[in-house]
Amino acid sequence: MPTLSNAEQQKLERLLQDIVKSLSQETERGAVADYIPELACIDPNQFGIAVALADGTLLQAGDSQESFSVQSITKVFTLAMALDRIGAELWQRVGREPSGLNFNSIIPLEIDKGIPRNPFVNAGAIVTTDVVLSGCQRGHMIEELLSFVRRAAEDSTIDIDASVAASEASTGYRNQALASFLRASGNLHHEPQVTLDAYFHQCALAMNCVQLARAGRFLIISPETPNLIPPRRVRRINALMMTCGLYDAAGDFAFRVGLPAKSGVGGGLLLIVPHVASVAIWSPALNAQGNSTLGLKAAEMLATEMGWSVFG
Amino acid sequence: MPTLSNAEQQKLERLLQDIVKSLSQETERGAVADYIPELACIDPNQFGIAVALADGTLLQAGDSQESFSVQSITKVFTLAMALDRIGAELWQRVGREPSGLNFNSIIPLEIDKGIPRNPFVNAGAIVTTDVVLSGCQRGHMIEELLSFVRRAAEDSTIDIDASVAASEASTGYRNQALASFLRASGNLHHEPQVTLDAYFHQCALAMNCVQLARAGRFLIISPETPNLIPPRRVRRINALMMTCGLYDAAGDFAFRVGLPAKSGVGGGLLLIVPHVASVAIWSPALNAQGNSTLGLKAAEMLATEMGWSVFG
Amino acid sequence: MPTLSNAEQQKLERLLQDIVKSLSQETERGAVADYIPELACIDPNQFGIAVALADGTLLQAGDSQESFSVQSITKVFTLAMALDRIGAELWQRVGREPSGLNFNSIIPLEIDKGIPRNPFVNAGAIVTTDVVLSGCQRGHMIEELLSFVRRAAEDSTIDIDASVAASEASTGYRNQALASFLRASGNLHHEPQVTLDAYFHQCALAMNCVQLARAGRFLIISPETPNLIPPRRVRRINALMMTCGLYDAAGDFAFRVGLPAKSGVGGGLLLIVPHVASVAIWSPALNAQGNSTLGLKAAEMLATEMGWSVFG
Amino acid sequence: MPTLSNAEQQKLERLLQDIVKSLSQETERGAVADYIPELACIDPNQFGIAVALADGTLLQAGDSQESFSVQSITKVFTLAMALDRIGAELWQRVGREPSGLNFNSIIPLEIDKGIPRNPFVNAGAIVTTDVVLSGCQRGHMIEELLSFVRRAAEDSTIDIDASVAASEASTGYRNQALASFLRASGNLHHEPQVTLDAYFHQCALAMNCVQLARAGRFLIISPETPNLIPPRRVRRINALMMTCGLYDAAGDFAFRVGLPAKSGVGGGLLLIVPHVASVAIWSPALNAQGNSTLGLKAAEMLATEMGWSVFG
Repeated sequence: MPTLSNAEQQKLERLLQDIVKSLSQETERGAVADYIPELACIDPNQFGIAVALADGTLLQAGDSQESFSVQSITKVFTLAMALDRIGAELWQRVGREPSGLNFNSIIPLEIDKGIPRNPFVNAGAIVTTDVVLSGCQRGHMIEELLSFVRRAAEDSTIDIDASVAASEASTGYRNQALASFLRASGNLHHEPQVTLDAYFHQCALAMNCVQLARAGRFLIISPETPNLIPPRRVRRINALMMTCGLYDAAGDFAFRVGLPAKSGVGGGLLLIVPHVASVAIWSPALNAQGNSTLGLKAAEMLATEMGWSVFG
Repeated sequence: MPTLSNAEQQKLERLLQDIVKSLSQETERGAVADYIPELACIDPNQFGIAVALADGTLLQAGDSQESFSVQSITKVFTLAMALDRIGAELWQRVGREPSGLNFNSIIPLEIDKGIPRNPFVNAGAIVTTDVVLSGCQRGHMIEELLSFVRRAAEDSTIDIDASVAASEASTGYRNQALASFLRASGNLHHEPQVTLDAYFHQCALAMNCVQLARAGRFLIISPETPNLIPPRRVRRINALMMTCGLYDAAGDFAFRVGLPAKSGVGGGLLLIVPHVASVAIWSPALNAQGNSTLGLKAAEMLATEMGWSVFG
Repeated sequence: MPTLSNAEQQKLERLLQDIVKSLSQETERGAVADYIPELACIDPNQFGIAVALADGTLLQAGDSQESFSVQSITKVFTLAMALDRIGAELWQRVGREPSGLNFNSIIPLEIDKGIPRNPFVNAGAIVTTDVVLSGCQRGHMIEELLSFVRRAAEDSTIDIDASVAASEASTGYRNQALASFLRASGNLHHEPQVTLDAYFHQCALAMNCVQLARAGRFLIISPETPNLIPPRRVRRINALMMTCGLYDAAGDFAFRVGLPAKSGVGGGLLLIVPHVASVAIWSPALNAQGNSTLGLKAAEMLATEMGWSVFG
Repeated sequence: MPTLSNAEQQKLERLLQDIVKSLSQETERGAVADYIPELACIDPNQFGIAVALADGTLLQAGDSQESFSVQSITKVFTLAMALDRIGAELWQRVGREPSGLNFNSIIPLEIDKGIPRNPFVNAGAIVTTDVVLSGCQRGHMIEELLSFVRRAAEDSTIDIDASVAASEASTGYRNQALASFLRASGNLHHEPQVTLDAYFHQCALAMNCVQLARAGRFLIISPETPNLIPPRRVRRINALMMTCGLYDAAGDFAFRVGLPAKSGVGGGLLLIVPHVASVAIWSPALNAQGNSTLGLKAAEMLATEMGWSVFG
């Protein structure tokens, strides 16, 4: 896929407007995540989309400037940092296969003796956080994450929403169970509450669609994108997003959309169009699998209309 | 990805020779599948590779003219035929998600009340066979399959190896268990032995690497390839190959190679490079997950050297 | 527990009448098993009960002379015969633990590599049937079973209902799946259909409550009962009935009733009061776990009123 | 089973000596539990046994006066207290079925949405602790437990070993995972660390065989035993011990020994002979299932020689 022609860029611009308009009439949106109290009161009638092209061109529509909690989308950045820290050693502590189960399932941890199935299920991301945290304080690790994301997005205003982190810390018992199980299995180098504290803070990263789309550009291989990690690693992270990024809906998403992606329970969705673009979509109401209902629809419309599948 | 330049084609030609040479020195190859008696006596020291470009150009090296049992690779053709027969209705009988378990695991069938996780695990392919078989005799269904594959490969000599089918029928108790469970769940329209008879015959499809590479061209979208199924369906089958084609090693394969693929216990591997090429690799000795040991290595060497990942 | 005094015997006699009367007013009975066509048309408004004391005294009430299909209750006789045949060797092919799952679950077979959890789940009873069948024809094995049951019940008229066996054979796909899986695991010495044919015939054993209560007396240790198996084995079979006889409702039954028991989908229930009595209860409508709804109630009333728990 | 005659009592006395002598020559004992640091340094070459008859008579042999950590055996007392507190309401928060899995497995919690399979697996005992703790402080709850156990044993010196509690609190990550999961499921009324603190303290109850055998007498129905809970509840707790007391070895224990029992990772074993006796056995080295290797042997010898099975 080459970069976009002027005609394609104009088509894309109209398409974003069409998507916003078309989805504004959707009535079945699902419900906003309520297990993190701070997220439960978000207005579900919001929808934003932004596309950052390889050359930095930015297109947007809808509520693309509204900040939201990226939640699990951060796992992509943390994985990149963990690989930067210890390279292939990481794969002794985390697998690379889809789990066939929910993102917060604890069953695979018991079956696989404390090795999470992949870095995008919660247990896996707790391990990558544990890796990045290694030998430093939480504050330091979060600074490093912010530094990475700000460089990727070329935007120094991106920050953590501490109230969301606090909110999740007070109710995140399921993640506590995962972290304690990892620790019991010898696969957590810090006390569970230490790693979880960092984990909850990184999940509380706040961005709007424009910022997220720009930040995602480090996953496009192009001479024009920020060269934060080697191309080989870019490909591999994209591969993991394709097979594991949407948890137990990854197969269906690959089937419908055909692009690497990562979702978060804040309703955000990051899509990578290799060589071409990084796309951020946000709509807070979720379907039963915990993915943004309108986000998935928008992704399918966008990929279909632009012919953006990696599969031909 | 555009078609190959002359220089790239020459590079590819040399690379195939290098792969053959390099792998001929591999000593750890695993073991030939022994649960189908007819396959147990294949010489493990064989290795062939063939690449069919979109324009029909053919490159090959090693034992690329040796015929082998394609086994599960047929599932790709049968899926295409099942979708042609009943379209999206198929997805009421089969899922589209990786299972997180072995290719012949029966556990997901009980958990999901008789709905196989995807069309590439054995249970799923028994269902697609049941769909294609619908309303006709086994002989007729096999004729249809052969007709499809022969058209795809533009080679009318491709055939079933009846002795392999008979061999598997006499020992295929695990597949009998899957078919009986499907029938008990109301997800098999024929008696188990009827569908299994067809299933074992299709698995016994015999091809050499050249034939398989040519047959795989229907999964490349190009004006020059046989247009057997619509482009949208090509993309979707490729997506399923990416997330489910190598069973519980699909995530690792996407990570290492980054191309849609389907493996078979005969030691064959079909790889699709969207827009560019269809690749067949064969080496009969298998690793613990039931994939060809040298086949995986060759696929990784090929994709890395040619820069053929779909992920950038 | 000593044998019953005259007063206790009179109390028991009145109690059986009271139970019949009381349960005749129950409206929530569940549904008759419908997966075996021949059983689907049984009148659910039937209830019978019979008590055979150690000394042979027989008390009965309700439809105690109506013949019914004992189904899984036969597993007790087959286990006794299998132990007689190969003794403790049996425990290399079958476990002795409750499964924590449904009676026809196939999940434990895959987890435990073809070793059924216990001889009372279907897979386990298919193995005990396979043991008893060893080296003979189905007809011979069924003769042996009938001979055993007739001697136990001292009633030569007890027989198999061939139409029920045929009915189950034509629809028993779930049991076919279990048998095929066992065979695939090397834990079935005959072809699946051969062992299943014997299995379906033994399940089709027909008895009325009086016959079943009398047949159960071989599980009471007493100088007055038929001495068909050694006392140590009697205790062990009773132990297995206590922990596994009612499948995933065994814990609840031990809690409520406190006696070894075995249920069947025909609506029958065999209860052993060690040293004292063998009890048969029958009512065809089943609860969600596949046990007779009124049978369980009657067992609880009987045990509570007579003080018949083994637990004090 | 009546109380013991003089001859039987003499036989029992000699038998205890024989058991001690016979087992002192056993070389395959397994290993002492090492996941609680304080328990890891116990001398494995110890063995004690004590029998408390219904009338209070006490027989003992070996290291029967050595104090040990009763660990999971306390679950029996806590269950009695929880039932005393909220009666049958308890069964809305805990099941009554064997799990078919390890005592600390977290898999059933996810499958059953936070309802532990029974009160004797760790998750279940964390819930019964949570019930008893309700509305009071940990200190108060532990006082209540000690008061209950001291009354049962008629021994006011029984106490908690605080160093064991502290030791487990510092390493009990697996139990933290269970408690956090319960809390996430809404089945824990206190913060995980609050309930766990009480749980670890109760597990750290220290007794010698004589004390434990005497304490167990509240589970014998007899006019001569301390009447701490109603007879009906005694039977029910015994039933749960039979089906769930030895976790995934309960079926085998019922088969071999035929008596209700509860084991602990400290190497203790409490056996109830309904109407007749309470037996405590202790030997710290454990088998693969976490039960005392010599404890199981001693229990089998004792039950077999005395004819103490509940099954006849």
